[in-house]
Amino acid sequence: MSPEEYVPDLPRAARIGFGEAVYCAGKSVAQIAAILDEASGRDASLLLTRLDETRFAALAERHRAGLDYDAVSRTAFAGPPRPLAGATRVAVVTAGTSDIPVAREAVRTLRFEGLAADEIADVGVAGLWRLLARVEELRSRAVVIVAAGMDAALPSVLGGLVPGLVIAVPTSVGYGVAEGGRAALAAALASCAPGVVVVNIDNGYGAACAAIRALGGRPVS
Amino acid sequence: MSPEEYVPDLPRAARIGFGEAVYCAGKSVAQIAAILDEASGRDASLLLTRLDETRFAALAERHRAGLDYDAVSRTAFAGPPRPLAGATRVAVVTAGTSDIPVAREAVRTLRFEGLAADEIADVGVAGLWRLLARVEELRSRAVVIVAAGMDAALPSVLGGLVPGLVIAVPTSVGYGVAEGGRAALAAALASCAPGVVVVNIDNGYGAACAAIRALGGRPVS
Amino acid sequence: MSPEEYVPDLPRAARIGFGEAVYCAGKSVAQIAAILDEASGRDASLLLTRLDETRFAALAERHRAGLDYDAVSRTAFAGPPRPLAGATRVAVVTAGTSDIPVAREAVRTLRFEGLAADEIADVGVAGLWRLLARVEELRSRAVVIVAAGMDAALPSVLGGLVPGLVIAVPTSVGYGVAEGGRAALAAALASCAPGVVVVNIDNGYGAACAAIRALGGRPVS
Amino acid sequence: MSPEEYVPDLPRAARIGFGEAVYCAGKSVAQIAAILDEASGRDASLLLTRLDETRFAALAERHRAGLDYDAVSRTAFAGPPRPLAGATRVAVVTAGTSDIPVAREAVRTLRFEGLAADEIADVGVAGLWRLLARVEELRSRAVVIVAAGMDAALPSVLGGLVPGLVIAVPTSVGYGVAEGGRAALAAALASCAPGVVVVNIDNGYGAACAAIRALGGRPVS
Amino acid sequence: MSPEEYVPDLPRAARIGFGEAVYCAGKSVAQIAAILDEASGRDASLLLTRLDETRFAALAERHRAGLDYDAVSRTAFAGPPRPLAGATRVAVVTAGTSDIPVAREAVRTLRFEGLAADEIADVGVAGLWRLLARVEELRSRAVVIVAAGMDAALPSVLGGLVPGLVIAVPTSVGYGVAEGGRAALAAALASCAPGVVVVNIDNGYGAACAAIRALGGRPVS
Amino acid sequence: MSPEEYVPDLPRAARIGFGEAVYCAGKSVAQIAAILDEASGRDASLLLTRLDETRFAALAERHRAGLDYDAVSRTAFAGPPRPLAGATRVAVVTAGTSDIPVAREAVRTLRFEGLAADEIADVGVAGLWRLLARVEELRSRAVVIVAAGMDAALPSVLGGLVPGLVIAVPTSVGYGVAEGGRAALAAALASCAPGVVVVNIDNGYGAACAAIRALGGRPVS
Amino acid sequence: MSPEEYVPDLPRAARIGFGEAVYCAGKSVAQIAAILDEASGRDASLLLTRLDETRFAALAERHRAGLDYDAVSRTAFAGPPRPLAGATRVAVVTAGTSDIPVAREAVRTLRFEGLAADEIADVGVAGLWRLLARVEELRSRAVVIVAAGMDAALPSVLGGLVPGLVIAVPTSVGYGVAEGGRAALAAALASCAPGVVVVNIDNGYGAACAAIRALGGRPVS
Amino acid sequence: MSPEEYVPDLPRAARIGFGEAVYCAGKSVAQIAAILDEASGRDASLLLTRLDETRFAALAERHRAGLDYDAVSRTAFAGPPRPLAGATRVAVVTAGTSDIPVAREAVRTLRFEGLAADEIADVGVAGLWRLLARVEELRSRAVVIVAAGMDAALPSVLGGLVPGLVIAVPTSVGYGVAEGGRAALAAALASCAPGVVVVNIDNGYGAACAAIRALGGRPVS
Repeated sequence: MSPEEYVPDLPRAARIGFGEAVYCAGKSVAQIAAILDEASGRDASLLLTRLDETRFAALAERHRAGLDYDAVSRTAFAGPPRPLAGATRVAVVTAGTSDIPVAREAVRTLRFEGLAADEIADVGVAGLWRLLARVEELRSRAVVIVAAGMDAALPSVLGGLVPGLVIAVPTSVGYGVAEGGRAALAAALASCAPGVVVVNIDNGYGAACAAIRALGGRPVS
Repeated sequence: MSPEEYVPDLPRAARIGFGEAVYCAGKSVAQIAAILDEASGRDASLLLTRLDETRFAALAERHRAGLDYDAVSRTAFAGPPRPLAGATRVAVVTAGTSDIPVAREAVRTLRFEGLAADEIADVGVAGLWRLLARVEELRSRAVVIVAAGMDAALPSVLGGLVPGLVIAVPTSVGYGVAEGGRAALAAALASCAPGVVVVNIDNGYGAACAAIRALGGRPVS
Repeated sequence: MSPEEYVPDLPRAARIGFGEAVYCAGKSVAQIAAILDEASGRDASLLLTRLDETRFAALAERHRAGLDYDAVSRTAFAGPPRPLAGATRVAVVTAGTSDIPVAREAVRTLRFEGLAADEIADVGVAGLWRLLARVEELRSRAVVIVAAGMDAALPSVLGGLVPGLVIAVPTSVGYGVAEGGRAALAAALASCAPGVVVVNIDNGYGAACAAIRALGGRPVS
Repeated sequence: MSPEEYVPDLPRAARIGFGEAVYCAGKSVAQIAAILDEASGRDASLLLTRLDETRFAALAERHRAGLDYDAVSRTAFAGPPRPLAGATRVAVVTAGTSDIPVAREAVRTLRFEGLAADEIADVGVAGLWRLLARVEELRSRAVVIVAAGMDAALPSVLGGLVPGLVIAVPTSVGYGVAEGGRAALAAALASCAPGVVVVNIDNGYGAACAAIRALGGRPVS
Repeated sequence: MSPEEYVPDLPRAARIGFGEAVYCAGKSVAQIAAILDEASGRDASLLLTRLDETRFAALAERHRAGLDYDAVSRTAFAGPPRPLAGATRVAVVTAGTSDIPVAREAVRTLRFEGLAADEIADVGVAGLWRLLARVEELRSRAVVIVAAGMDAALPSVLGGLVPGLVIAVPTSVGYGVAEGGRAALAAALASCAPGVVVVNIDNGYGAACAAIRALGGRPVS
Repeated sequence: MSPEEYVPDLPRAARIGFGEAVYCAGKSVAQIAAILDEASGRDASLLLTRLDETRFAALAERHRAGLDYDAVSRTAFAGPPRPLAGATRVAVVTAGTSDIPVAREAVRTLRFEGLAADEIADVGVAGLWRLLARVEELRSRAVVIVAAGMDAALPSVLGGLVPGLVIAVPTSVGYGVAEGGRAALAAALASCAPGVVVVNIDNGYGAACAAIRALGGRPVS
Repeated sequence: MSPEEYVPDLPRAARIGFGEAVYCAGKSVAQIAAILDEASGRDASLLLTRLDETRFAALAERHRAGLDYDAVSRTAFAGPPRPLAGATRVAVVTAGTSDIPVAREAVRTLRFEGLAADEIADVGVAGLWRLLARVEELRSRAVVIVAAGMDAALPSVLGGLVPGLVIAVPTSVGYGVAEGGRAALAAALASCAPGVVVVNIDNGYGAACAAIRALGGRPVS
Repeated sequence: MSPEEYVPDLPRAARIGFGEAVYCAGKSVAQIAAILDEASGRDASLLLTRLDETRFAALAERHRAGLDYDAVSRTAFAGPPRPLAGATRVAVVTAGTSDIPVAREAVRTLRFEGLAADEIADVGVAGLWRLLARVEELRSRAVVIVAAGMDAALPSVLGGLVPGLVIAVPTSVGYGVAEGGRAALAAALASCAPGVVVVNIDNGYGAACAAIRALGGRPVS
């Protein structure tokens, strides 16, 4: 792919309310550099997802300097994110520490779009008391994103405790039957709690976009 | 199971905002009758789902008389639904006519909880112009529930056109690779449109519950 | 199969500590009758599993009269079960009412072998408070059998709360991704709670046998 | 495998109308070199597919010099392709930029056999207006090859808009349920548009061969 | 679904070149009757597919009288098919006699659209000489549709022998690993013959539509 | 993840009877080092699992010096294990030599918790006489853990020979249908011996925890 | 299918050494009757497989009278089988009584072709001593066919004990992970005993044909 | 694993008629060296399988010198193979050149046991005439081993042409649905030719062992 083949999806913000995002998995360093240059020429802000540290490090210094990079979530902001606006209405919860990268991708996507979010880690159901200690806080959120792998029991438990929209993000953490996140995905879809919704495995970005849709769009700056 | 084993989930409305619902698949006519009697004694309204015509017809006349039954969606209201309140904020869309029973289950669940919804049938992507004729209307809804089987391309197309929350309900319509809804489920989860969320195959009830969560709970009557 | 082909597994009790059991699924009424006659001639007690009501009703009156039949679990005792002995050391828990037939098969198997068990129904995680109300009781049991379908979150939650052996029995309850119990099976195997063990889908009989093994064998009468 | 084990499939062109093609995945550099020498001795043209850059770079200079190599599609022509003949009757369309390598393999195969083809990139259904802008052009083509991964909604949409043969090539782009292309494959096979046909995942070569079959064979030079 | 919900897809013929077709699986007798009445009022011809004998027999005499019904393929013509035009350019081949219903659906669909087709039964590869006796005939066809279940070896063998477009229709014939047609589908997609294309399992209708697309549309009457 | 995000699961021992364990797969060397420092500050003993040799070697000398590391099982003790107490009540058996790493993880976990266990290698059913030579010894154990890949026939054979609790650990050894351990898992769950229980593929740690639960908790030191 | 479409596979015996066989699953009573009439006109013997009792009973009296029918295996001989010749060289073994129908299909196929076979029932590995009592006898057979469902451990155990060809026939007996025979199939293919071969699930006919191939063809009468 | 844990399977030859074989996948160089030393001390011959070139090259010179290594099949003989005896009764056939490593493993195993075999490469069904040219030769063999990946149509075609035992070895060659050999495995098991038997994917060793079993054991030297 020559760089000029990149066609920015300009009217997306107008239509469905999101900023520009670039999914970097499978893209070469040269392709990413070209995309950054193109956006820079337009003064556009970009969210880069799935940008691992190796490829980030391989970018030229001038490109790296322009990025707000977060290694845990493998995301970068090119150009300023939208200003934060309004109260915190979203919480992002993880069952285990291994789920944090996926949760952080959701938090960073929300931040890019101008929304603050709480991140509450390691409240999986095998340690129920840690979860129960946070329930009141979670009950006050309009949207609760839950990143959980393995048996993904957490979305079901939360779905029975909080009134807000529960968005489950199955994660690919684990081995054996949990490998690749299929067990977590099936468990989340089969949740016995009414009204839990699900996105693709490891799709923290998608969960954040869904939260924004549910909240009526990103804040007007 | 003796009838007295049925334990109504009374505090659910207080906690997460839904009325009582009874999933009738796998329950005998005697069990359903006992549940109806129990609820009647409490003056409680119930939503019955997956109540097929055969079992409905096998209920005693006095039970049938107390039900508002809809054969297409296999749902019944026992006792009055909540009064309708507020403007219509949800649309329920189907790709093909075979998806209507699932869509109708969502519409009926919303109605039971006091929410009106549009039902827009047969706007699958193989007939794109029928869909495009309704886009402006759909863009005005806070939530769009999409029931689609086979290739489930409709949630992706809608996800790129409307700003509201798009909830995909894969349906078990079809044969070959589509049998049981697995192809539709995978396609919905893999949607290239950002922020599409998914519930279990044929789970119109769950999609409606998710819509209510996204709207901040059912209307206060 | 001619009836004489049935070869009772006589030395099993001596070797691994269980009474005789006959799995009736796929056996004709004539075959079951022949097995009953053969056992009767030996004065042996039999546990019959998966004996549905249709085939039970089709047995001759003299056969039915000799059976202690339970329709919910589809089990029958032919001949006296072993006398109850010792304190109750096993609890059998279900997530939903639909899981009761599988749980009851475990309870009945334990009873046939001379062990009492508590049956605690409908304490699924979507209604967490009902479960928490029983935790102290469950913590006192050496073995907790958990029958759960759909997302099978209950074994994980219990595995984090009780010190005894937690035996998960996934059930085939549900539809879509939950159909046939595969989602529940995967979730139970992927449990984030340490030391949860699993048997085949719907295998209440096997769970009870495992409990007896864990307790050091059935009581000596 | 010693090089002499390669047996060129000489009569294939006479029988079913394609030039010689060598699938290089899994072949060593030495094996590829031997094949090139053998073909060179016969003055035959070869199409090499799945020749990644690493192995291309490892070929001897004299071999590389004789190849028209394209890194995006991982294809090479050894010897001249057939002369272009006739009007452009095939379009090759991609849903996203990640699908371009597969699409390019189809374009290169067509070119090797003497057929020109349009390549239209990044017209996936999440950006419907980009697709609609090209529909009239696509309606004039006898064959439209569609490379699409993830939810593969594009073949269905196109199948409802154009009268020519629509050949879907699912691609292995994506993660989670989309990993390896299975979701895209199932969606393409379950397409609700009548008469969409499908080839194996990532099989751009096969799609081009099918196009040539549908057009009545490669042009006579 | 009330009958008036049926919205005929009138512009389809103009757009992509097929007559109206109604997929009857899952539709009730009343729904089919309403569709027939509606089409009759428009003087439109319909192709009905997946109309099994039981539901056909349950239609009113006046409806049955207006149908040209074929029990093997479970298809019916309501109203006259298009007149036959042109030479026979399509052959429909089956591997075994069990594949005939699927093949016949393709033949009937072609006939409805005005195309004649040969039907060549039971030339599976386990009896290779029967196939070889027909190869010259098959080599003269522009399109060869191959209905094959089990191991679906026939499309591969034919793909190496004939120059026309080979459309494989996997069938759900068989048991064990062949059950439901998944083995046949995988084998057809993995065909070692270049340019074989595939449609969904048992989709004889889709194969015929693809043939019409490949032939440049149905004949102009 | 910053190191301070590690929240030790302190009350676990009190609740369900296990020491602290850290699953190292997917954790960086820096994260493991931080966890070790934190535990060292608390004078706590840790069991580290899935710590491969590469990451062990990359730890600082001071960290390595404090670890009792076993390369075969990829486990380490940080701090002293519980003192051994009581007679040997558990045997850990492997079908083949490739299953030894998983079996050793179980043995090491038991040792960390203060329980001795026999390890009996390479008694798979294809060499039945080697197994039969050990049966009497195995019959005397309260728990027999069986690590077996491929066809996993060993748990079934043992389940018919010994009265203790048989815990099957399917291993991911093998290729083709055995790849990843799915065949072994299915075989273990479908065991024809009554009361065999199963944990996730390669989960030697979980099997040991289940053994401890079955034995009534780890020994009181 | 009209009856005349049945084309007997006459030269098969000459080519690969089997008599004519008709797979009756999916064939109507009328089709089977026509086949019987056609074969009768040629004085040919037929083996009918998968002919269930319902369809057998629905045949005309004159057809039933000409058949040697066995209800357990669902097979019938139309016309005399080949005369028995030579010593018994094949044993057919079942793991459980539920596997007998599949084993009997193999025995009957062998008998039709003129070979005697022992049938040894219910020697599954959970009752190892019953198997060991028959090992010497089994070691003397050139071919041992093993019908086994569930965990299919028996082929592995026998493969380690006998020198002859072990042909595993997985059976569809069982529930949960064993449902449909997939677990048994995987276990048989993954057998740790060298040289065990496998046929499709429930394919007793195929196992018998393979035995005849291995023995150098059916006996010359 | 310490080297002394290797327990040679000495009585195997006496029992089931094969020499000692060591599966090297997953074994370290040190483990393989220890096994070679142990066998050398016993003057035993070993067949090593799945010994890739990297680990072969890493063995000490003295070990390499004692091995007859073949890189294509990744096999080695340590010590002399059995002397060749008798006429050639086995043919090993491959569908494509990529299947040769698996076929060669079978040929080498046979050679180790004292049996000669023909190796016939690249006669896949897409080039049917190459296969037909060899049929008479293949009809004279008692056993025909067929290594085939992708659609694995070759075993079915051969099963209809030759009277000997046809042993299919699916290979893991290919991509998309063919990846890992699952499509080939399913096709081979579903073969429409009677009496084709199957071994695990890529299991050339097992196919050779089955051939030896079918031939009545390895030749007596």
